[in-house]
This record gives sequence, structure tokens and C-alpha cells, in this order.
Amino acid sequence: MRAITLLIFTSFLFFSCAQKQEKAIISDALSVEEIKDSTNIKQLFDSALIEGKSYEWLRDLTQNIGGRLSGSTQAQKAVEWGEKLMKEVGLDSVWLQPVMVPHWIRGEKEIANYTINGKQKNVAICALGFSIATPSEGISAEVIEVKSLDEARALGTKMQGKIVFFNRAFDNTQIHTFKAYGGCVDQRVQGAAVCGEFGAKGVIVRSMTNSIDDFPHTGTMSYVDLPEEKYIPAAAISSQAAEILSADLKQNPTLQFYFKQSCKNLTDAPSFNVVGEIKGSKTPENIFVVGGHLDSWDLGEGAHDDGTGIVQSLEVAYLFKKNNIKPKNTLRVVFFMNEENGTRGAKKYAELAKLNKENHIGGLESDAGGHTPRGFSIDANTANTDLLISWKKLLAPYGLHDIEKGGSGADISPLKNENITLVGYRPDSQRYFDYHHTSRDTFDKVNKRELELGSASMAGIIYLMDKYLYNNTPVKP
Amino acid sequence: MRAITLLIFTSFLFFSCAQKQEKAIISDALSVEEIKDSTNIKQLFDSALIEGKSYEWLRDLTQNIGGRLSGSTQAQKAVEWGEKLMKEVGLDSVWLQPVMVPHWIRGEKEIANYTINGKQKNVAICALGFSIATPSEGISAEVIEVKSLDEARALGTKMQGKIVFFNRAFDNTQIHTFKAYGGCVDQRVQGAAVCGEFGAKGVIVRSMTNSIDDFPHTGTMSYVDLPEEKYIPAAAISSQAAEILSADLKQNPTLQFYFKQSCKNLTDAPSFNVVGEIKGSKTPENIFVVGGHLDSWDLGEGAHDDGTGIVQSLEVAYLFKKNNIKPKNTLRVVFFMNEENGTRGAKKYAELAKLNKENHIGGLESDAGGHTPRGFSIDANTANTDLLISWKKLLAPYGLHDIEKGGSGADISPLKNENITLVGYRPDSQRYFDYHHTSRDTFDKVNKRELELGSASMAGIIYLMDKYLYNNTPVKP
Repeated sequence: MRAITLLIFTSFLFFSCAQKQEKAIISDALSVEEIKDSTNIKQLFDSALIEGKSYEWLRDLTQNIGGRLSGSTQAQKAVEWGEKLMKEVGLDSVWLQPVMVPHWIRGEKEIANYTINGKQKNVAICALGFSIATPSEGISAEVIEVKSLDEARALGTKMQGKIVFFNRAFDNTQIHTFKAYGGCVDQRVQGAAVCGEFGAKGVIVRSMTNSIDDFPHTGTMSYVDLPEEKYIPAAAISSQAAEILSADLKQNPTLQFYFKQSCKNLTDAPSFNVVGEIKGSKTPENIFVVGGHLDSWDLGEGAHDDGTGIVQSLEVAYLFKKNNIKPKNTLRVVFFMNEENGTRGAKKYAELAKLNKENHIGGLESDAGGHTPRGFSIDANTANTDLLISWKKLLAPYGLHDIEKGGSGADISPLKNENITLVGYRPDSQRYFDYHHTSRDTFDKVNKRELELGSASMAGIIYLMDKYLYNNTPVKP
Repeated sequence: MRAITLLIFTSFLFFSCAQKQEKAIISDALSVEEIKDSTNIKQLFDSALIEGKSYEWLRDLTQNIGGRLSGSTQAQKAVEWGEKLMKEVGLDSVWLQPVMVPHWIRGEKEIANYTINGKQKNVAICALGFSIATPSEGISAEVIEVKSLDEARALGTKMQGKIVFFNRAFDNTQIHTFKAYGGCVDQRVQGAAVCGEFGAKGVIVRSMTNSIDDFPHTGTMSYVDLPEEKYIPAAAISSQAAEILSADLKQNPTLQFYFKQSCKNLTDAPSFNVVGEIKGSKTPENIFVVGGHLDSWDLGEGAHDDGTGIVQSLEVAYLFKKNNIKPKNTLRVVFFMNEENGTRGAKKYAELAKLNKENHIGGLESDAGGHTPRGFSIDANTANTDLLISWKKLLAPYGLHDIEKGGSGADISPLKNENITLVGYRPDSQRYFDYHHTSRDTFDKVNKRELELGSASMAGIIYLMDKYLYNNTPVKP
């Protein structure tokens, strides 16, 4: 009996924390209107957690279509899938926006190796998006390791005929892993442009990740304004291989690194943004857009990047409909095409919005993975930023504490003007770069509750934006 | 070129959020002393993320020892492992506290099935800890499904000769999953005691989880004060099997459910708490204890429950030593034995503390998994609770927002008195009950950064407690 008493007692101690927080939803000096908002937001969360569809949609997209690089058959299948799904959810109208997209293909699986102490080591690499192929026999050269673009530039013509190895690792002391990514990604994006200029034979770039593992991370690169004859092949190598290669170079600075890739830039391909909307009940001419990107890299299934963003965006509309919450303004869901290598869909969407004189009041993008909710980052004028931050008391009970000024996302930022309020959904970032742009970005890495909490978080802030934002900043069409 | 400009621009938008928050560490109107604290806390986080050892310790414990149920050979190996490791970390003294623990063994893998529409369905079950075995041939009986202990009690003798099936699911609308657990676990703990009283043949209990999957979750149960002749076997069935069985019972209410388990309660076994400490530099007679539990259930590797708590607790001491931060008070690390089925280690530790007139000022327990940090829950007097909550401005930059009154943990709560400040570390709870007490609680489910951020979070609050708590509430020994 005593064991049970203790168990009940310690359970009480343990759970009283959660109970207290639950009560805070309605006890933190909320106005009558805020209590109503808090009730509606709770309804959206309850609904997402009980009858949410996002997880099954994501299973379908990732398991039955998989990776969907712009221009690929899978990307086209994803467009059809998205259009069909939006119609099934019962949006008032659904349409496709044609857009021409870059069409880069990886070709055969890449090969890389080198020999040290008489032993051949195979190296996990993958071509970077937009990179050219190596000659069909591959390339073989000495390696020069550098830690930055500046260090590479300083080498000048010393890099002629060599492979330049960019090996600056993530700063793991950054709590927000996107900041570590931001501190390294110039190597991937511009490495080949810098080294092509000086006649390097190729570049290999340490994978963009916090973790030490053997999965190479692809991602976009650019030759910037280099003349085509100076283009050189660029590949990512796994973080573990980068560590080993760096150590081996200390032992044998003249080792010959070999790699071969057969990727190719084809002519632009036709594709589409998938767009659907719930017409606003009062001011349908005013639009809130919520979206993510439908394309993904080819190596994995595009689960966290950005299948989760897609299904969460549609679930916002689904939750509104399911709970009979009619947005005052038009709620538009967009599955943007080609975020990964070109953002052509985003540009096309903004271009058409301008052409059609559409009045976008706000936008919300989910493209930072499907992990547990942390908050939102706001790109808006001061008044609206402050307004959104003031909603923290309504959103914090759901783990949404990080509501602050910042960027939104690549797909909605082309809409930016002085009146629009752009918001980026910010889930927890710790695991994101374990999967980002790799073969590990698969459905099994996504947790159902975390995904649904994200949908509900997004629905919650859209509910508040729809209700208060227009009043706060009347925008003249 | 434009592509790059856009890329740099959108990167800026995206990362400025994180940058802003980073600055908040020292810009939020901190006093000179608080700036010093913030610098020291950042040092602890940097150290954990760069030179942390917890992940490799956890790999060793989970991969080389694995599950370690009280009384087992593996539990004894874990004691030896813990003692050796504490010595390697260089604690000032390390010792073992003998304690007798319950010794329950699972025996052979459990079997369960039933036949419906002429087809046999195998059912994923596992015996609950402390349950008796079925007869060696198993038991077979009709099933009565109930949703609560009260519903079972109301059946009274109608349950004679039947198997009672407790099938109340988690309330998935609870944001904190521990609260959903708290709302269901009485079925597991007391189901057999209630039904044994009325002559049921056995009980099967829906697994304690938010997810629908085929992994049964074990856990402790009790026959409370039932006389031994009324003991009946108790097993958990997977949530998926529970859903299917419930549907099948609607179709055929008299289906015969069969299960067989050969678990056994042996006589109590000798075991140990593993204890180590860094002697306080000023008031060594005052003690802060930080710990988790060394034992685990047998089905998995005891990774999130509670290998992570163990290695994080030791990492607190490691980080203090590595960064040459000398605690004023004694910092004691305890690997408690037998939290899962008896909390005998916790009781022994508190008993010895009292016997030796030790002066515990505070305690910190990590036993809620190794996921991304969210906060702390505080069981203390009002003054100290408020003091700890006031540290939010120093801890929030690391994602530690949920700092509030609540319970601490099963292993430190026996130390409770009016002066002690007990704290539970609270990581994100969304994924926890996917793994809890199952074969899925394995090393691969733990993320290195999330684990290390937890160690650093714990080190951060212990740093503050060691510095401020004694001054705030002088405790007379």
C-alpha cells in the first residue's frame, strides 16, 4: 500500500507542473476577448492532435512519391498529388501556377576514393546541385585543405590543377543550428566559383551538419558570374570523411584524391506551384498566404525538408474548415515549387501577385523541419511585430516562446513590402541538420505529435493574424 | 549573381532571428553579477557542446550493458561501470551505498493470441513488473473491456473467470505527455489489484503511449494489499493490438483470449547506489545532489529511461571540473538504483542522509528523457521558487522557458523538507512515450546535441543554485 501512496504522491509532484501550466492559458490576466481566442486556439490544437491528417499525408507523399527534385517525374507527381489533396480537403478553389524550373540531374551514384599507406579508402560524397560532372573517367589530383573562401582566394594560382577541400565545420556552440549553417554555407554555395576562377580542378566541401557521420549533404551551389569554361565540379563529402581526409592529409599532403560524378544541367522544365484557398468571409480581397515547398532534394524522401511544411500548411486550412472557423480574409495555401535550387516558384508567385494586384496582408512559411514547436520569427513593421509578440501569452502554453523579430523564409520573402507581415514557423532545430539534404531525410524521422503541434501552432497564429492584423494595419489595396 | 544576392539576403533574414536571441543573453538589463553568471553559463554550454562526454558514456552503457533491471547481472555491471566512470572523471570521492532491491524476472518471451473469423491473431504483450506468471499452459478466457478502475469495480463478480482489458487511451490533447501518462497509469499500477479482488483470471492493460504502434510498454504494477491467493497475472498489450482487440470484441464479445507469461518474483537481491562528489570549497557540509536512475526495464537499452539522466548528471560534475568552476557547496552525483520497481535506492539514500545528519540544500533529477531542453520544475518554498524562476532571463536563451513550480522526481523527493529546493529537469516530452519502457528505448533514439544541451542546462542551474541558494535560505545543519 505504501508503494502505491508513494507512487501517487510522486505522480502528483511530477504532474502538478504540467497542470499549473495548463491553467496559465486562462489565468494570465487575459481579457474576455483573449479568453475567447485562447479557447479557439485550444480547439485548433485539440483538433490537430485528435483528428489531424498531416502525418498520413506526409506518409503518402514521402513513401509513395519520395524525393522530388525540380524537373523530375516525382516533382510532377507531387504537383498532381498536391492538387488532388487540396481538392479533397475542400478548399474553395484550387489551381496550378505554371513556372519554368531548373532541371539538374544527379546521374549515377558518385564515386570518390584515395589511397594512403597502400590502402584505398572509399569516400562518401555527392554532387552539389547545379554542379557540372567530372570527365567520365573522373578527376584525380592533390588536395589543398582550406577553412574559408578567403583562405582559398589567398591561394590564388597555387590551386591550379588541385582539388580544393573546404573544411570549416559547424560552430557547435551556436544554440540555433541554423546560425551554424549560416556560418558555413558560403563554402558550399560559392566554393566552386572562387576556385574555378583560379584554375582548380574541382572542389569538395564538408557537409553542412552538426553531426559527425557518413552521410553527404547535397545542396545548391552557384558558379556566380564565372565564364562557363571555368566551371569545375563540386561535391559534398560527409563530415566523417572530411575529418579522416584532413588527418590523412597531415600524414601525406600529396595524396591523390579521386572523384567522379555524372550530374548534368538540362534545359529548364515546366512545373507548377500548387495553390488553393478558402475565400475570406468579410474581406476576401485581402490575402494571407501559408506555405512550404513541394520540391526536395533527390537523396532522401524530402520529409523534414519540406514535406512537413507542405502538410502543415494544408492542415492549417483543414483545421479551420474542420472547426468551422471562417477566416475573415482569404486564406491561401501554397505548395511552392523549386525552393531548393532556384526559388523560381516563389518568384513566380510574387510576380503574379503583383501583376494581379493582389493584396497580401501576411504570410507564414514552414521550412525549418517538423520538430517540436518553439516559436515564430517575424519580418514586419514595428507595430505588427509588437502585436505578434504580444500574443506570446496565448501561444506560450504550447511551447511557443520564441516569438521575435527575424526572417521569414525563402518562398514568401519575395512578397515583402512595408505593410506585409511575414512570419517563419520555428520548430526546434537541434536534429534538423542530421537529416537536411541527405538520404536520411525520411518519414521515420518525423514524429506525429511534433508535426501536428506544428500545424496547430501555425493555425493558431494565422487565426490571430486573420482576426487582428487587418484592423491593426489597414492596407489600402 | 542575383541568385547569390537573394541567397545571402534570405539567409540574413533567416538567421537574424537567432542572432537577436543570442544577444539577448547580455542585453536584457542584466546586472554586472548577472553578466558574469551569463558568461559562466555560456562557458558550460560551449564546453558541453564541444567536449561533452555524455553521448559516448551513454553509448557505452546502452551498447555494452543494455537493459539493467534491478537484481540482474546487467544492473550489477552498471554499478561497476558507474563507479569506474565516476573515478575516471576525477570526483573527489566515489563510493557505493548497499541497498537490497526487488528481483523480478521476466522469464520467457510472452505469448498471446485469439482467434476470430477462423483466423488466429498474435498479440504483442509483455508482463508488467511484479506480476506473477500465468500457469505454465497459459490462461484462456473471455475478455471484458473497461476504461477505468471504477468501471472494473462496478463489474464486481461479473468478471469472475474473465480477463479484464483496461483500454483507456492517453488524452492526446494534453500538450505535456506526462500529464496524459498520469491520467492513465492507474490502470497499469492498480488494475490487477482491483480485478484480483473480484476473481478475474487476469488483466491486460493498454500500453502507456501517445502513439499507435505494436510495441508493448512494461512498467511497475502492484497487488496493493491483496492476499497472495488472489494475485492474478497482468500484462501490457500494444496500443495497436488494443485498438484491434477492441474492434474484434464488438464483432465477437465471447472471443477467447489466450496469454502466457513466466515471470517471477525472486527474493530481494543486493545492489547499490553509486555516489560520487566534488567537495565544496567553502561550505562542504552543505550538499547539492544531482542524479538519475541507473536501473532500467529489461526490454530496451534504458537509453532515454534513464541512461540519459545518469550521464547528464555525471556530466554536470565533469563540466564543473573541466571549466575549473569550484562549487562552494558539495556537489554530489548519485546513480540511484531501482527507481523502476521499488525506488529502494532513493529511500536508502534519504535514510542514510538523515542518519548521517547530512545537510542537503538542493537536489536536481533528470528522469524525463534526453530530448531537447524545455525547463525545470521546482518543488521548494515560495522564496526559493521565485528565486529560481527569476533565473529565466539567464536560461531562456538556451530554450529553458518552462521554469515553474511543480514536482521534482521519484529519486530525490524522499529528501523533501521545508528548506530543501528540489528540481526536476524537463526536456521536451513529445517523443518520450514512443520509447518509454519498450524495446525501442535504445541509443539511436538519443540525439547528441539534445543530450549535451540537457547536461549543460543542468550544470547551469546547479551553478546558480550553488552560488545563490545558500545565501538566500541559510539552512542550519
